[in-house]
Parts: sequence; C-alpha cells; structure tokens
Amino acid sequence: MKQIKIFDTTLRDGSQGAGISFSVEDKLKIASALDTFGIAYIEGGWPGSNPKDEEFFKLAKNKFKNSKLVAFSSTRKPNTKIQDDNQIKKIISSDTKVATIFGKSWDLHVQVALKTTLKENLKMIFETIAYLKTKKFEVIYDAEHYFDGYIHNKIYTFETIKSAVDAGADYICLCETNGGVLPSYIEKTVKETIKEFPNVKFGIHAHNDCDCAVANSIIAVQSGCQLVQGTINGIGERCGNANLCSIIPSLQLKGKYHCVPVQNLKNITNLSRYIDEIANLTSNDSMPYVGKNAFSHKAGVHVSAIKKDSKTYEHINPKHVGNKRNILVSDLSGKSNIVSKADELAIDLEKDVQGIINIVKEKENNGYQYENADGSFYILTKKLEKTYKNFFTLKNYRVSVEKNKDGSIVSEATVKLDVNGKEEHTVAEGGGPVDALDKCLRKALIKFYPEIKSVILTDFKVRVINSDANTAAKVRVLIESKDKKYSWGTIGVSDNIIDACWQALSDSVEYKLLKK
Amino acid sequence: MKQIKIFDTTLRDGSQGAGISFSVEDKLKIASALDTFGIAYIEGGWPGSNPKDEEFFKLAKNKFKNSKLVAFSSTRKPNTKIQDDNQIKKIISSDTKVATIFGKSWDLHVQVALKTTLKENLKMIFETIAYLKTKKFEVIYDAEHYFDGYIHNKIYTFETIKSAVDAGADYICLCETNGGVLPSYIEKTVKETIKEFPNVKFGIHAHNDCDCAVANSIIAVQSGCQLVQGTINGIGERCGNANLCSIIPSLQLKGKYHCVPVQNLKNITNLSRYIDEIANLTSNDSMPYVGKNAFSHKAGVHVSAIKKDSKTYEHINPKHVGNKRNILVSDLSGKSNIVSKADELAIDLEKDVQGIINIVKEKENNGYQYENADGSFYILTKKLEKTYKNFFTLKNYRVSVEKNKDGSIVSEATVKLDVNGKEEHTVAEGGGPVDALDKCLRKALIKFYPEIKSVILTDFKVRVINSDANTAAKVRVLIESKDKKYSWGTIGVSDNIIDACWQALSDSVEYKLLKK
Repeated sequence: MKQIKIFDTTLRDGSQGAGISFSVEDKLKIASALDTFGIAYIEGGWPGSNPKDEEFFKLAKNKFKNSKLVAFSSTRKPNTKIQDDNQIKKIISSDTKVATIFGKSWDLHVQVALKTTLKENLKMIFETIAYLKTKKFEVIYDAEHYFDGYIHNKIYTFETIKSAVDAGADYICLCETNGGVLPSYIEKTVKETIKEFPNVKFGIHAHNDCDCAVANSIIAVQSGCQLVQGTINGIGERCGNANLCSIIPSLQLKGKYHCVPVQNLKNITNLSRYIDEIANLTSNDSMPYVGKNAFSHKAGVHVSAIKKDSKTYEHINPKHVGNKRNILVSDLSGKSNIVSKADELAIDLEKDVQGIINIVKEKENNGYQYENADGSFYILTKKLEKTYKNFFTLKNYRVSVEKNKDGSIVSEATVKLDVNGKEEHTVAEGGGPVDALDKCLRKALIKFYPEIKSVILTDFKVRVINSDANTAAKVRVLIESKDKKYSWGTIGVSDNIIDACWQALSDSVEYKLLKK
Repeated sequence: MKQIKIFDTTLRDGSQGAGISFSVEDKLKIASALDTFGIAYIEGGWPGSNPKDEEFFKLAKNKFKNSKLVAFSSTRKPNTKIQDDNQIKKIISSDTKVATIFGKSWDLHVQVALKTTLKENLKMIFETIAYLKTKKFEVIYDAEHYFDGYIHNKIYTFETIKSAVDAGADYICLCETNGGVLPSYIEKTVKETIKEFPNVKFGIHAHNDCDCAVANSIIAVQSGCQLVQGTINGIGERCGNANLCSIIPSLQLKGKYHCVPVQNLKNITNLSRYIDEIANLTSNDSMPYVGKNAFSHKAGVHVSAIKKDSKTYEHINPKHVGNKRNILVSDLSGKSNIVSKADELAIDLEKDVQGIINIVKEKENNGYQYENADGSFYILTKKLEKTYKNFFTLKNYRVSVEKNKDGSIVSEATVKLDVNGKEEHTVAEGGGPVDALDKCLRKALIKFYPEIKSVILTDFKVRVINSDANTAAKVRVLIESKDKKYSWGTIGVSDNIIDACWQALSDSVEYKLLKK
C-alpha cells in the first residue's frame, strides 16, 4: 500500500463556491471533523485576504491531533522585499508550521495578471519559499495553471518548478486551476514532469470544469503524484474542486493506496453530510459513495438480482463507506421493490401488493414521492389493513399571520380534532404558521398520547413542483422526525403550503403512534 | 474530425433515477428536444417492461428529423423460442428500425441472475440479434457488466461479444453497468477488446459510481470507441449515467471529435435546463459547461484577472455552450465583484462601494444571498441613493388559511399600504396564502402603477436554512419574475415563511417600478 497524503482545502478553495459562506465557528467545526477523520493537511484559509481567516488561525492553533494545519498565500508582490510583504508576515504570524504558497507557472498570468517580468516571477517564487524555509515552515508550492502553462510554454513552467525546488519546497502541487484539461493530457504532463524532476514529491490539485476532476486526480496519483488536494463534497468555485469523498474511497478500496486510517473510511458518509449541513447545502443525493442514492435501486430487474447477490448491481459494499442500500418505491419499480421496502419497514402486506402499487401510482401522479417519506408510506399501507383505526381526525384548523406597521408579526393557529370521540380545540402562537400549527397539534394530543413528547422535528424541506405557473403552484413538504431511537420522513402535497405542512406534521405524529 | 455517434438514454436508463417519473407527454417533449439538438440515437424506452413505453413508441413513430429512435430490450428468455418471446415481439411491433439488446457478459450474472448455463446465454445473444437482423433492424448490443466480466472471466466475455458479432450486431456497446471501474482499467480493457475484434464498431456506456463516468467515456473514445451512451445532465440510477452535457462539449471543443452539428452546441445549456424542467429537478448549478455557476466567479483575484483576460480563469468561452459569465456578489468577494455586478445591472454606485459591501455582509449574515437575487440587490443599492423614494409602504397585512371538515380550504389575505400618501386596503382570496397576498398587493397598486400588470411570477423557491432546529427555522424565499422583456430574482428571509414570501413579492414589484 503506497501512502498518499490527503490535503483538504474545503475551508480555503471550497469557500469560494457559490452560496458558501463559513463563519469562524463553522470553520472550526469543519477542521475538527477533518482532523478526527484523519486528513493529513487542512488548509484553513488565506490569512492575508480577510480578517475572518486570521481569526480562525488564532483559535485553531494547536487544536488538532491528526492533521497539520496549513495557511495559504501567494508569492510576494513583484519588486518588494520579502521581509516587508504583508501577506507573508501574516503567514508567519499565523504560526501554522505549514504554508501553501501559490505562484504563477503560466507565462500569460505573469504578464497579464501580475504585470511583471518572467524573471521577476522566478525570483518571487524562490525568495518567498526560501524565506519561509528559514522560518522553519514546511512549504507546499501550488503551481497555479500548471497544465495550461505547460501547453503554452513548457520550458518556463519547468523553470518555475526549479525555482521552487531550489528554494526548498517540500511538495510541488501541480494545479489544474481552470479545470479544462482532459485525463489523457494530465497523465502525459505529470509523467513528463516527474521525469524532469525525479527526486521531487509532487501533488495534484484539480477542478471539475470538464467533469473529470476525480479521474484527473486518480490518474495523477497513478502517474506518480503523492499528495491530493480537494474538498469535501467537491465544493468550490464554478464546477467545484476534486471531490475527496470520491477520491479517498476509490484510491483506498480500488487503487491499493492508503489515504486515511482504514477504520475511519466508514465515517466518510457522515463526514460528507456533516459538512453539507454546516455549509447549509442540500446534499447531492447522487454523490458517489456517500450520496443518499449511491446505493439506491429502483429498476425491478436490479432489485430482484440484488436480492440474489449484491455484487450484481453494487460496486462495493455500502458499509465500507458508512452508507446503506436503499430500495425505492415508485410506479416504475414493480413488486420486488414494494416487497423489499415493506420488509425493511416490517410491514405485513397481507398479499395486497397490487393494491399498494396502484395507490402509490395515483399518489405519485399527484406529486407525492415516497422515496424520502418512509413514515407516510408506512401509514399508507396500514390504512389498507382491516384493523386500521384513526388516532385522531381533523375537524378544522385555522392559521393566521399578521404583520403590523412596527414590523412585529404574530402567527396563530387553532386546531379542532376528534380524539377517541372527544373534541379537542386548541390554540397556539408560534415562530411561524407551521410552528403554531405543530404546537396546536401536540397540545391537543399529548394527554391522550404522552409518547409524542419524545418526537422532535429534525428537518423540514419545501419544494415547489410545477413552479412554472405562479404562487398558486403545488408544494411538496418533507418533514424528518425522530424520537430517542428512530428517525422517519413524512410528506404532504397541496396547492396550499400550509396544508402540505399539516399533512406532513400529522403523518409524523401518526407514524409514531402506529409504531409504538 | 472523427465522427462519434451520441446515443441518448435519458428516457430509458435516465428514467431509473431516483425522483424521476416521466409521463408519455414528457417523453415526447424530451425526444423532440434531443432530435432538434441533433442527437444520433434516442433510446425511447423498454416496450416490454411497461405500457407507458409502448404508448410512447406508438406516438413517437416517424416524428424525428435528425435522430433514430431506439427500442430497448433484453435477449430472449432462457430456453424459449425466439419467435415466442414476448419482449422481442414488442420490439418488433414498436417498429423503430433500431433496437438495443442487452445481454449478459459477466458469467456471475448468467448463473446468479438468469439462472441458466453459459452456453445457453451465448445462444440467447446470437438468436435474439440474428432474428432482429432478419427483421431489418439495426442492432446495438449492450454488453452488460462487460468490465466486471472481463476481470473475472475474460475468455467468456469475448465469447459473448463473438456471438453478438456473428449474429450481425451493428455496434457492440461495452457497458460499465456498476460504475465501479477506474479510468486506467477502462483504457486497458477497451484497447485489448478492440485488438481482439479489430473490424467491429464499439460503444461505451458508463455509470458514475466512482465519479469517473465522463472521464471513462472520453477515455473509451480516445481508445477507439465510436459511440457514446449517456443521459442529459447525467440523470440515472444511483449516481447517474455519464453526463452527455459534459461529454459532448469536451469531445467537440477539446478532443477534435464531431458529435453534433457545430452550430447546435450553443443550445446545450438550454437543452440541459429544459430537461431538468420537464423532469422537475432542481438544476445542479455546478454542472460543467451548462450549470449556472460553471462560469461564476466569486474570488476577488479571479474577477480582477478575468477582466484583463478571460483565459486566466475560464477554460472555454461560455458562449460556445450557450452559457454566460456570472460575477457573484458576496462578503468574500471584494470590490471588483460589486463593481462588475453594478456595471451589469447599470447601477451608478456614486462611489459608495464600501457602504454596499458592508450592507451585503450584514444581510448575508442574516441568511440573504444576492447571487440569485439581482432584483433585490438592485433595490438595496438604490436605497442608498439620495434620490430614492418608496413607491409604497406596508402598514400591515393579515393572512389566514382555514381548513374545514369537508376538506375545503380558504386562503384569504388583507393588505394595508400607504401609496403616495393614500391608504389602500385590499382583500383577496387565493389558491394558497402567498397567492392571496400577491393578489392583494397587485390590487392595491395597479391603479397607481398600471405597468405592474405585465409582471408575472415564473418561479418560486423555498429553502429552509438552519433546518436542524424545528419548524420555527429560518426560511429563504426566492422569486423569479418577468415582464415582456426582462426577468429578475428577488429574495426574502424570515423566521416566518409568509413574511419571507412578502419580502420577495414586494421586491419583485418594486424592481419593476424602479426600472421603468
């Protein structure tokens, strides 16, 4: 097993992604999760570019057990003394022991972006790295736009690498900054570069503008690179950085490389979702290895084959990456899916599989989707049983929201339920109309069913379907609930957002009561 | 320029994706868009597996100018006569002239999934294809699990290919069904296979379970494959199929291959978004080439370099694929972004750039995001100008939703505005609370500002932020509006979903009035 150093730049390059805005606390949480996971290097930010990153380095100092913390900066400014360069001062005062210095390897950038001479650029690279080495830093040199530079002026790119190597850089990271290079060219360039500098340790930094960032990183490793830069979930500017959640399992499970402690790989799905949560991003369910659908099966033929042998349609055992198989229920999927799902939820189908398929089909036509709403699917099957009885029936509800001139808003709900023949009429105010409705529902039920006290709502998603129309469009609401032991999803669909919420809320409570 | 045949399977393999459910009308619309775009083959479905697909083939017959329509099926059942096989009968009655037949190339699948002998499987492949050839079909043989089969039993995989070739298959498509194979292995296998069958035309069908589907497809083409199967936006089971929206531009702009008519490439961004719209999927903004953020720039250094030379941080000109550059406004991005955005929106900043940066920063801390809300950003800058005046001021609103025992729901809103010193008090019912609020607002304003009549709402998105809390969590609402000429986005953020909608609705109208 060859050791590959994983270099995470979620907190620096990742934070350039559209819609990403990390607070200092977010950054500390993420760094701590990366440390626990066993990432070799964590690039925390660019202390010279904003005060938030400076603050982060102050608070993060000496906090990590497994990871080395890295500060990022450019080479010194043209025609200045290295001792006077402000950014380099900030790197030194960040006190991280490891620094990434990015410099220009593409002659176009030297002339157009930096507006200096090719010769001065070489001096900037050399002096910046050499100076940091005198300050006892481990230095990773990021050769920006290396692959584009190599096409245009190979000799000059080599000169920039030579300057960095001569100055004592510990790693040279070849950066495919614009993300526009195809795998075959990566392989050729990396191999030729390593041939030119056989005793140097190289890394790869890829972007996803051609949808090849992960492949390019893996190919660079197979061509001799020993360090991989990337981000969790591939977040980053434009189309994102290389996704470490794909690279690490592929290298470790398929490539015979060692990236993180073996026992940690099964935490990568949790890591992925935790970072999305902090970044406030909706997780991409299709993500390889870690996505909710990475091991989902919908086609009837696939589901029936997989029950015979999982290798038939699963490239690895989902457990190795802490993910799980997921059989989807839809009108396309046929009986084996319904039966598998029912097994998973411990539902006795009483043989009326076709009845359930028909209902699912009709509901899906109306915008329902049971793929993320196991709880509502369970209720739907239970309603077909002869022994099914309602725990409560809605007589009516009313929700009002009033905003006054002073900006204050009052949200109030009233709910009238029939519970075991008794009428319960409750009223509550809430932080918003849905919160008020939820409080009413609980108030009405708690004396009959005290077990609902343990149910809390953990997630709440609203999706507009048919959004081409106008504000009267249909809305789908998904609610995730949990008690001390389990979690479940419920769904509501309506032209009216309040009613869609009501459906999902009342299913959430009913599932809890049915399951006891 | 070498010709590569593009084979789209959005309607067949793509429809196995989680959350995808195409109606027959959806399928017809998608096929027609693919035809216009100039895709060589459109796989319409599996007529033997469900009546929806049968219906589709009836309606789609002879409809297309540029594309060949393809029907999909498996090889005949074990130990049956080919003439009696139901699925093959349906292929013939679909009357498509082209058929894809998938068969087993991995011995494990023959024994475990099909439960037949290796010899019978070879007969099934041969007889199915030979029979369709006598019926004058062009036949593409999909060698399912080819790459896994090749690892386990190379000799048998070659025998299956030989059976298909001997039967007269026009293309042999090598399918990486489980998506678990890395690029280097694809290259080796494709090259060795072509060496074994030098006079056969090969295709590639890749899945994205290792995040390498696009790279694997491109590498297969560079290794000699002449046909590429994939889906628009990479939709498909688990982690999806190979994304044609990445493959086509990469092959055509970077690989010197010809896939679709040159003048059509600039329609690929529109095609991508149209398919997402029909599939009712939220477009992935990070998608290479066609995503909203594919050419978005947030980092200050990138934005200032790009203004000097676009090659510095853009791998192609976005116009080649019908996409556009997008400068993002955020607290991270610095002055060059704010200035660029203001230029784009024709805002005169009156030099108070720092003032705007401070406000954006504060608003973003409270959950606002101006990246998709140009309209609200415009209003924010206008409010800083000395000449700014309100078109209307909210005094109060009230919204109520009542559901009765019979299931009927009434949503009513009242709004009190001050318009040019006059109090306007309106009431309206709507399809939901937001619709009612929108109607009230228009009712109150239309006699003062008749130009708002032309404004319609085209999209409405609700995102729960901090969703880990409960139903009282903060909500972000984005509304897209348009008039006869322009479209604009506006935003609202609040603990209260109704109030977030109100903010976005009133910004939508205000933007229209400010812009006139």
